[in-house]
Amino acid sequence: MLPTSINAIEAYSGANGILKKVKKGSLLIDSSTIDPAVSKELAKEVEKMGAVFMDAPVSGGVGAARSGNLTFMVGGVEDEFAAAQELLGCMGSNVVYCGAVGTGQAAKICNNMLLAISMIGTAEAMNLGIRLGLDPKLLAKILNMSSGRCWSSDTYNPVPGVMDGVPSANNYQGGFGTTLMAKDLGLAQDSATSTKSPILLGSLAHQIYRMMCAKGYSKKDFSSVFQFLREEETF
Amino acid sequence: MLPTSINAIEAYSGANGILKKVKKGSLLIDSSTIDPAVSKELAKEVEKMGAVFMDAPVSGGVGAARSGNLTFMVGGVEDEFAAAQELLGCMGSNVVYCGAVGTGQAAKICNNMLLAISMIGTAEAMNLGIRLGLDPKLLAKILNMSSGRCWSSDTYNPVPGVMDGVPSANNYQGGFGTTLMAKDLGLAQDSATSTKSPILLGSLAHQIYRMMCAKGYSKKDFSSVFQFLREEETF
Amino acid sequence: MLPTSINAIEAYSGANGILKKVKKGSLLIDSSTIDPAVSKELAKEVEKMGAVFMDAPVSGGVGAARSGNLTFMVGGVEDEFAAAQELLGCMGSNVVYCGAVGTGQAAKICNNMLLAISMIGTAEAMNLGIRLGLDPKLLAKILNMSSGRCWSSDTYNPVPGVMDGVPSANNYQGGFGTTLMAKDLGLAQDSATSTKSPILLGSLAHQIYRMMCAKGYSKKDFSSVFQFLREEETF
Amino acid sequence: MLPTSINAIEAYSGANGILKKVKKGSLLIDSSTIDPAVSKELAKEVEKMGAVFMDAPVSGGVGAARSGNLTFMVGGVEDEFAAAQELLGCMGSNVVYCGAVGTGQAAKICNNMLLAISMIGTAEAMNLGIRLGLDPKLLAKILNMSSGRCWSSDTYNPVPGVMDGVPSANNYQGGFGTTLMAKDLGLAQDSATSTKSPILLGSLAHQIYRMMCAKGYSKKDFSSVFQFLREEETF
Repeated sequence: MLPTSINAIEAYSGANGILKKVKKGSLLIDSSTIDPAVSKELAKEVEKMGAVFMDAPVSGGVGAARSGNLTFMVGGVEDEFAAAQELLGCMGSNVVYCGAVGTGQAAKICNNMLLAISMIGTAEAMNLGIRLGLDPKLLAKILNMSSGRCWSSDTYNPVPGVMDGVPSANNYQGGFGTTLMAKDLGLAQDSATSTKSPILLGSLAHQIYRMMCAKGYSKKDFSSVFQFLREEETF
Repeated sequence: MLPTSINAIEAYSGANGILKKVKKGSLLIDSSTIDPAVSKELAKEVEKMGAVFMDAPVSGGVGAARSGNLTFMVGGVEDEFAAAQELLGCMGSNVVYCGAVGTGQAAKICNNMLLAISMIGTAEAMNLGIRLGLDPKLLAKILNMSSGRCWSSDTYNPVPGVMDGVPSANNYQGGFGTTLMAKDLGLAQDSATSTKSPILLGSLAHQIYRMMCAKGYSKKDFSSVFQFLREEETF
Repeated sequence: MLPTSINAIEAYSGANGILKKVKKGSLLIDSSTIDPAVSKELAKEVEKMGAVFMDAPVSGGVGAARSGNLTFMVGGVEDEFAAAQELLGCMGSNVVYCGAVGTGQAAKICNNMLLAISMIGTAEAMNLGIRLGLDPKLLAKILNMSSGRCWSSDTYNPVPGVMDGVPSANNYQGGFGTTLMAKDLGLAQDSATSTKSPILLGSLAHQIYRMMCAKGYSKKDFSSVFQFLREEETF
Repeated sequence: MLPTSINAIEAYSGANGILKKVKKGSLLIDSSTIDPAVSKELAKEVEKMGAVFMDAPVSGGVGAARSGNLTFMVGGVEDEFAAAQELLGCMGSNVVYCGAVGTGQAAKICNNMLLAISMIGTAEAMNLGIRLGLDPKLLAKILNMSSGRCWSSDTYNPVPGVMDGVPSANNYQGGFGTTLMAKDLGLAQDSATSTKSPILLGSLAHQIYRMMCAKGYSKKDFSSVFQFLREEETF
């Protein structure tokens, strides 16, 4: 599980890379979150060596990893999925087969893009409602019983004081960092550009998280976008 | 329940308007979805006449209206809420007190803005995932058990073939029209401008629904944004 | 010349307003930058009193006002333009007839919206180029002899060190404040919403200047968007 | 001069690629518009063979190519620029040295991103102004003597009837196609993502041109964004 596409390429194709030594029949599982196009490329190289490559990025964070409750989204040849499932089941409580190589990445990227959009949307709606005179807890309750409901509003609300046990209740410490979200949105952007898919909100969400990284929010949880939107005018 | 702020002003302040004849002690309930600033203005005028004004926009659509299951979001003096609740309870199964006059509108506007953002986000994520090789039903299933989950993905999915009984299963007929969503986003935009609240995604969502109205999607359900994003290149 | 639509309405229609005392045949010229719909409304009221109303917002700033070099964009009945021109010519070197009442405002709003878009675009392009290794002065020179050329790149460049005598050369002091630009973009947004005109970039520009106001840039020149985009990551 | 990064890589590094046969001391000039990171990569490979690589993308289009009036933006070792200039001067009237390898691409990408932003901005401002009652020719004249002035408003106006001899006067035939603009914006997006530079408007401009490609505008000139924004509501 490596941080970037470049690291994964190096690990496989570098001077001392896996491709230099891999035995025929090996099953190689990469749990990095990287560009699906890179996963496909690596799979081709691995196949040339008579081995099998699967992409299996995770969601769930440090807590889920510790308790063995990660979700693995797996892409690769279907016949090999049973073998992967056996291994990954030791670390994750959810192992989902997504389709051909690269679709594990695709599923993760699409989920995280929608997550970023919903989170910023929740922050904007909560902020606007508060400025219009609504109590934040009441507004969250109304949204959560209505069509605006989403994971960011009902499970991970970004407004301090609305929920306990979430990063917004703890000065946006812990959780999923803004830098990591900006990285995943960069992958979504790259995939969208190369497949010519329009992502109007996804692309703007990417730019917003990029701005936040440049404004001192890098290490805060990604729900701190509420704080980013909110700062008061300083006359 | 009138379509626009201008109609509501006319109904109250016009030459033959309600304000000309209203009796002291009357309770006036307006269920239009209009600018909260207009609701506040009308409340002031009504108060001058010794009567009480509450804003109580609804959600739920034609079906809920027929079956008496509307949700009413009510703004106004708290002491009068019991009286309003008794009346509105005949038409709605959910009558929520939101706070001072105008907060009923505020709650509705914030919910619908977040709804529009989540819907476009779901459409973008589903479209990108499909182009990256994912099966739409599988992708919806993964999103719905993950942090990307939202009402638009799990209850009103915009991709034909993913769910039954929703507008996307019926060529985007019925449901909540694009024109109405564009109108509500216009109200969110106006409220955000006047309270100086940044709504980056909300504002872009508004522009996207505005574009759709200009491209023949006016009467389709607002989930048709999936179709709007998706049309193929025609070389 | 008043700061907001509300002030202008008060000045005309208030308890001691102009409409109470205006003489038949008077020519009333309003140089506020306000919503064109308000100008039209005021013109109607003034006409009822047998007088004439023209909107004539200015551009050029304090410097141009001092030296009598303002530009006036005038909307109103064409027959009255000669009279207005005679008066306004004392303060402005450029008096342009734009059409019916409200078109003076429309021209100003459209210009300032395009200005905001070009300025942010110039800041983004300069910032990206610098990060890609280009010298800022050289990049400005290339843009200015190419199709990217605009007033913001060739006359008012937002990058410190590229030009002399502009706010970017003086820590973004003086010039046209971010708050004022946010206000004008709010007017563009309102006009676009009420005429159902899509303004995708205009709307995003509005939100960006709104964010800047919330981040301590209120009193800086609007070209400080370069600085806003640029702040470094702080790991 | 090849259409994409992949083609350029193939031409240099492919089985029968230039790198297989290049003689020491050769000067290789690539006039493709591609990712600056790819230009840098190719330059390294070429250097290993003892030869020199420069990137020199062009602007000016078919007309300028025919008449020998192209502009070349050249990146590479400064000592070699004189040699490149001698060659390129035969085809171009403007040969600009931009800095290290990749900066030719960077200059072109930044210019075209700003061009796309200004063009969409001009189309939005003109469309809004027309809906507010302004005559298009008059509005263009006002913008062009004011701070909204840009190449897209004064030299290549997107509104039919405002100027002669531009694509908007000829049903958006000829000129610079929407597909090509979408491609260049994809390169800007990739460069911005990899250098972590926020491009809020640039990114939205990219998505707008991407949408246009999906809506039948692929082969029209990029100024047809005016037409894209404008289509009437069809009730």
